[in-house]
Amino acid sequence: MSDNAIVTLTTDFGHKGPFVGVMKGVILSRLPDARIIDLTHEIHAHWPAEGGFWLSRSHGYFPAGTVHVAVVDPGVGTSRDIIAAEFDGQTFLAPDNGILAHILGDTPSVPVYKLGPACREQLSGGEISATFHGRDLFAPLAAEVAAGRLKISKIGEQVSEITPSLVEDPVVDNGKIQGAVVAVDSFGNLISNIDGALLTSLKKPVARCGGKTLKLQDTYGRSQPGELLALINSFGVVEIARAESSAADYLGLGLGAPIVISGDA
Amino acid sequence: MSDNAIVTLTTDFGHKGPFVGVMKGVILSRLPDARIIDLTHEIHAHWPAEGGFWLSRSHGYFPAGTVHVAVVDPGVGTSRDIIAAEFDGQTFLAPDNGILAHILGDTPSVPVYKLGPACREQLSGGEISATFHGRDLFAPLAAEVAAGRLKISKIGEQVSEITPSLVEDPVVDNGKIQGAVVAVDSFGNLISNIDGALLTSLKKPVARCGGKTLKLQDTYGRSQPGELLALINSFGVVEIARAESSAADYLGLGLGAPIVISGDA
Amino acid sequence: MSDNAIVTLTTDFGHKGPFVGVMKGVILSRLPDARIIDLTHEIHAHWPAEGGFWLSRSHGYFPAGTVHVAVVDPGVGTSRDIIAAEFDGQTFLAPDNGILAHILGDTPSVPVYKLGPACREQLSGGEISATFHGRDLFAPLAAEVAAGRLKISKIGEQVSEITPSLVEDPVVDNGKIQGAVVAVDSFGNLISNIDGALLTSLKKPVARCGGKTLKLQDTYGRSQPGELLALINSFGVVEIARAESSAADYLGLGLGAPIVISGDA
Repeated sequence: MSDNAIVTLTTDFGHKGPFVGVMKGVILSRLPDARIIDLTHEIHAHWPAEGGFWLSRSHGYFPAGTVHVAVVDPGVGTSRDIIAAEFDGQTFLAPDNGILAHILGDTPSVPVYKLGPACREQLSGGEISATFHGRDLFAPLAAEVAAGRLKISKIGEQVSEITPSLVEDPVVDNGKIQGAVVAVDSFGNLISNIDGALLTSLKKPVARCGGKTLKLQDTYGRSQPGELLALINSFGVVEIARAESSAADYLGLGLGAPIVISGDA
Repeated sequence: MSDNAIVTLTTDFGHKGPFVGVMKGVILSRLPDARIIDLTHEIHAHWPAEGGFWLSRSHGYFPAGTVHVAVVDPGVGTSRDIIAAEFDGQTFLAPDNGILAHILGDTPSVPVYKLGPACREQLSGGEISATFHGRDLFAPLAAEVAAGRLKISKIGEQVSEITPSLVEDPVVDNGKIQGAVVAVDSFGNLISNIDGALLTSLKKPVARCGGKTLKLQDTYGRSQPGELLALINSFGVVEIARAESSAADYLGLGLGAPIVISGDA
Repeated sequence: MSDNAIVTLTTDFGHKGPFVGVMKGVILSRLPDARIIDLTHEIHAHWPAEGGFWLSRSHGYFPAGTVHVAVVDPGVGTSRDIIAAEFDGQTFLAPDNGILAHILGDTPSVPVYKLGPACREQLSGGEISATFHGRDLFAPLAAEVAAGRLKISKIGEQVSEITPSLVEDPVVDNGKIQGAVVAVDSFGNLISNIDGALLTSLKKPVARCGGKTLKLQDTYGRSQPGELLALINSFGVVEIARAESSAADYLGLGLGAPIVISGDA
């Protein structure tokens, strides 16, 4: 990796306070030419599954060598591990709370390493707060890895399994696919974990969500304002939208809400 | 344009989800040294006029060579065009839905080009989602133009007219100027489309808005907290403010609200 | 300072409108290689104390040579001064309204300079809006200082005192420490101005806040969801949190709310 490696940040810190800013200060202090990109800082608070979902669907748009840091970390300061893996030519760093299961699967086929005490001490210089590992561990770790000065295989022991996601994969049964809302975007679109590939065997698929039955459309723009629609969105998953409006507000649904797809086989 | 050309982004995507972040990933994948600046991502959803207004008033603060990308795009996936123009030494890329009319006028004196099928295919490699042209078309287009590898005159046919803005220009009649609120900022200031130059012939101008009549002031700081005031703001247009408070909340007004200026001729 | 000096921005502008974006445009126009980092733009509107607090606790995570710009400026356009100081190898620029008192103390031991009319004219080219000094004065000043082309001792006269903060320092009396909430983060944590060092002489310290008495904990992660707790946070001050929830919402408290620490001496 080069001096101007890309580091992306995915957190639930929001934009109040200097939390994201000081992580960038720490990274630039160690790697002045790093290009730091905010993936999003508005992951629903304490909901690793949304962070993992977005990262799994977004990393492919970044170049090889990118280091992705995801800090959605309700267990900060407890004994949960910090883990690292290389996948698709990129590096992923996150607490071991299910985030990386979205990218690697529950039983990863690539080696996964956990940050050990020696590396932890070396990165932090011994000053580790109990509540802000984003700044005190993840930021220096990301900078050193992005700079090419630290290989993830040297940060600590390899682990054989990682924590699974709290959100289960969609269940396919008898021509029905049951999934769940894993993210709500700024427009109020309800974004599910149902990959469009699961629907290819169905003819005339319909989505049921919040008491409504909706045919799958191609895009938003052909609907009338206020009309509910289902579509395979630009990240390849089923989404429930309301044209020029908020499906989440209109249906009163949010994270975890069930979405069922059915159709003729 | 150079390798470290500036690309600005103006969208209504908000900050939830990775939408802005993946656009940056796509740009950096093609132009690693691009400097990507967020103009704002909180344009009122599906309101191209606010995006066009801010871009028209902001681009002058960026250096020559800057590429401005505006994606406020309720018609994404329909037959609306993507258009490009050079103006003031900078490049502007937007859907043809009125955004660029704020910068170029309704009948542009500079050539405007629309993205044609060949270039569209070339930029996207054939994988174009129906709902996220920001990532699949605008981001690669911006990167190629900013890198100097693609001239906008080569992206497709020249068009003779562009879609006008949904917000009409202020009407000047018998010493009165009637305009409208085109943006509301984080402080709740009501920002109109009435250029200060329209007032130069008026003595003792007053603004009427939401049942209030207000004399024009120089700045916020000389008013008492809670006091309503009108002023020519830092972007050269009439603004209704409430000192250290929100005029929008207090008056119950928002986008599209009428503002009338009158005075002695 | 080098061509790729870091400039941080701390404002209460929020993310609506192009206010932060055009500041960056002005900086990059003068210093194309500047690395501009958003510390936060969600300082509570017109509350310089929050900006000063965060800057005082955050600047240590940035490298020497960083230029910090803080624009929380309800007095913009009045006679309030713009001041500059070097401290800890970094430069700080802010309106003289109490922000820098958090970093320098009320009677600074380092020289503080105020922007004079000649430099003001030179930076702005004479075009200074009455309401957006962030763009018209702070951004060019920051760029010139970061580029090493302007020393702060050349911007105008040295001042002997600066405006104190509106938030008083914690009062220590008879084993009790009374402080106040100076910031609320995205999680709803109530962050006080009580430095953890003040508690070292107390045994079994407890915090009282909003009618609750709370023992100090080490981290969030060991509490049950919904449980209130007090801790010394990652910025070294007392914080009242509610595990995986919002203490601010639950207690109905916000900026300025009193927090009292007591314990056995």
